[in-house]
Amino acid sequence: MPNASLAIDAAQLLAQIAALGTIGFDSDDAGRTRIALSDEDKAGRDQLVQWMRDLDLEVRIDRIGNIFGILHAPTDEGDRQPLMIGSHIDTVRNAGALDGCYGVLSGLAVARAYRAADSLPPRALIVAAFTNEEGVRYQPDMMGSLVYAGGLPVEAALDVIGTDGTRLGDELARIGYTGDLEPGSIVPREYIELHVEQGPILEAEGRLIGVVENLQGISWQKISVRGTANHAGTTPTRLRHDAGYVAAAIIAFLREGVVAAAPETTLATTGSICFEPDVINVIPRLATFTVDLRDPDDERLRAAEMRLANFLAMIAEREGVTIESERLVRFAPVVFDGALAADIETSAQRLGFSHRRMTSGAGHDAQMIARIVPAAMIFVPSRGGISHNPREHTEDAQLINGAQVLLDVVQRRLARA
Amino acid sequence: MPNASLAIDAAQLLAQIAALGTIGFDSDDAGRTRIALSDEDKAGRDQLVQWMRDLDLEVRIDRIGNIFGILHAPTDEGDRQPLMIGSHIDTVRNAGALDGCYGVLSGLAVARAYRAADSLPPRALIVAAFTNEEGVRYQPDMMGSLVYAGGLPVEAALDVIGTDGTRLGDELARIGYTGDLEPGSIVPREYIELHVEQGPILEAEGRLIGVVENLQGISWQKISVRGTANHAGTTPTRLRHDAGYVAAAIIAFLREGVVAAAPETTLATTGSICFEPDVINVIPRLATFTVDLRDPDDERLRAAEMRLANFLAMIAEREGVTIESERLVRFAPVVFDGALAADIETSAQRLGFSHRRMTSGAGHDAQMIARIVPAAMIFVPSRGGISHNPREHTEDAQLINGAQVLLDVVQRRLARA
Repeated sequence: MPNASLAIDAAQLLAQIAALGTIGFDSDDAGRTRIALSDEDKAGRDQLVQWMRDLDLEVRIDRIGNIFGILHAPTDEGDRQPLMIGSHIDTVRNAGALDGCYGVLSGLAVARAYRAADSLPPRALIVAAFTNEEGVRYQPDMMGSLVYAGGLPVEAALDVIGTDGTRLGDELARIGYTGDLEPGSIVPREYIELHVEQGPILEAEGRLIGVVENLQGISWQKISVRGTANHAGTTPTRLRHDAGYVAAAIIAFLREGVVAAAPETTLATTGSICFEPDVINVIPRLATFTVDLRDPDDERLRAAEMRLANFLAMIAEREGVTIESERLVRFAPVVFDGALAADIETSAQRLGFSHRRMTSGAGHDAQMIARIVPAAMIFVPSRGGISHNPREHTEDAQLINGAQVLLDVVQRRLARA
Repeated sequence: MPNASLAIDAAQLLAQIAALGTIGFDSDDAGRTRIALSDEDKAGRDQLVQWMRDLDLEVRIDRIGNIFGILHAPTDEGDRQPLMIGSHIDTVRNAGALDGCYGVLSGLAVARAYRAADSLPPRALIVAAFTNEEGVRYQPDMMGSLVYAGGLPVEAALDVIGTDGTRLGDELARIGYTGDLEPGSIVPREYIELHVEQGPILEAEGRLIGVVENLQGISWQKISVRGTANHAGTTPTRLRHDAGYVAAAIIAFLREGVVAAAPETTLATTGSICFEPDVINVIPRLATFTVDLRDPDDERLRAAEMRLANFLAMIAEREGVTIESERLVRFAPVVFDGALAADIETSAQRLGFSHRRMTSGAGHDAQMIARIVPAAMIFVPSRGGISHNPREHTEDAQLINGAQVLLDVVQRRLARA
């Protein structure tokens, strides 16, 4: 059973979140920008490492720049693998203060709970901050955890050229975070990530804790419809090959024919569109738009893709247009560790926090680590579901709730070891 | 009955179309650009006036720059009003050679037929070229004929400021086409305009002559759908206010719910659209798009507008978005003179040309002149329905057919006077 004397220092956790949030602050509004391997990211990393040292954690950096703060167990660990808590501290442009940072700093809060009680965990506790989760300057995103999990060779990651023409390895060396640890050489027994939901579900249902048991598969396509440009006033409907109408019919079908087939799990979004020639009285000759399909079940995701493909073939034939679909991204769904999710649920229950099982709609480092060790996530509510935006917000009390669940899960997992 | 000795000089008409088409030629491709009141428009006007003088027509210019070439009747005309043939010679950017020019030069071909036969019409015959039909630089379009018909005071037209900041009256004076004739002071008994169809109907049906009995009403709206931007992966469908989906559903409804209610006459087109923020994985907060509705019957056009408005109200309520509609243009349909249309039909029949009654989908000077005198139009086929484009094309033989119908109608109308 958890040691009742261990407790989250709420004031200190909130103060660190606020302090890290001032680094890279955008003066014109309330956001901050710490793109991976920028000077601002270096300043954030330096602060994190200082806080790790303040807690007397052993700090290790690996070759892709992932930072680990290790609270060792009292005895020689032998085959007793550590428990890892992780997330990231890089940000998108003009970000909120919570995305990623909340999980890393809550990990420090757990380590601090041990230090404050003058206690040591029976297995080592590692707090990880993974490099370049956001993927703003260097693709792919979730890069540090992907390399850590063996999904991308570290040499290939270091050679990635950014949107500004810089080489990732050069920038990593420039900010002094090329470590000597081989990525993946520390293999934890389990990985837990605490994160803001970045979606509206917990808030809408008035629940405090999300027990994240899986993560959606993602299918991104760019669809181009080629028809015939013609005068809007002189071309009878039966003679039209209207790329604009066809695009609209497809986007409407995504909701009415694809999502409708699995309304609780399949999501479909068209976020970007353009017509050519884009003139009020000319029937579009070209309509290009994006499709973002998600489902936590790969079979349902494939069924959604198939429904869309069938509709494209049908409407291309019917309307006399040609339709091309380019695959941009395809990630299979991730199922998190059932036992770990059950432990999170039990902790939320024990602490009296309303909770629900849920699916992560966004990508997280946890999905990469889940490739190699049991992993799961804890969510806390996001006001209005807003993230990647200075208006990202979670109530202080809710942040503390999440950290308390994290501490409880960690204690119970370690007690069993 | 028409004087059998009168005939269109096919070679001369085609030569003049080709020659006028070289003025303002765009060297990089096959188009030409003679925007109203530009140097190129002046060169085109000078050429037209020269050709009128070659035919010994009296040339008159009115205060808005409309050009009239008058073939007088032999006797004092008294109350015997003239017959007017008209169109325009200004062009859009990178235009074909036929739009407008074909009608004006066919008018000259009719006058030339009289001159060649050494014959004079029993009533005066006037060939008109109206100023700024295209409305590229100065709004509104069809301006010269609108002023002529009393729909816009000439002073207001002269004071219009163009897209390049110039004042229309100044540019008109600069190119030397500010005339002294009061617009509308010559009132013809009837007005006939010969034009390329600019649509695909005649070609698709394999007919040679369109007897244009009416002109569609036009309703242009700009519709803005405001929803809520949110993460495409974390926002359940039931919590979305997806401006992009709503826009697509509206555009699909235009075809499936508005056009479907009157598929032979109502046209609906969305030519322009944009989303904000226009990012693949963000649900659009704003979707803005245009709606072009047309119908030759005003009641049906109003019914189409009403169906759209009802759908906007329904879907705004259902999806929790706000929708604003801004009216951009609203022209009521024009019904041309039935007797004149019947005369055109009879001439096409007499000459053995396949023909059909039809509606003009585009706007023409004839719709303005129809406000004050009986008017109708004759169409010839446009290859592929293409216009406002260097690829605008009508077979030479088809152009001559149209001019022959025009000559026949003119002779028969004048014979009756």
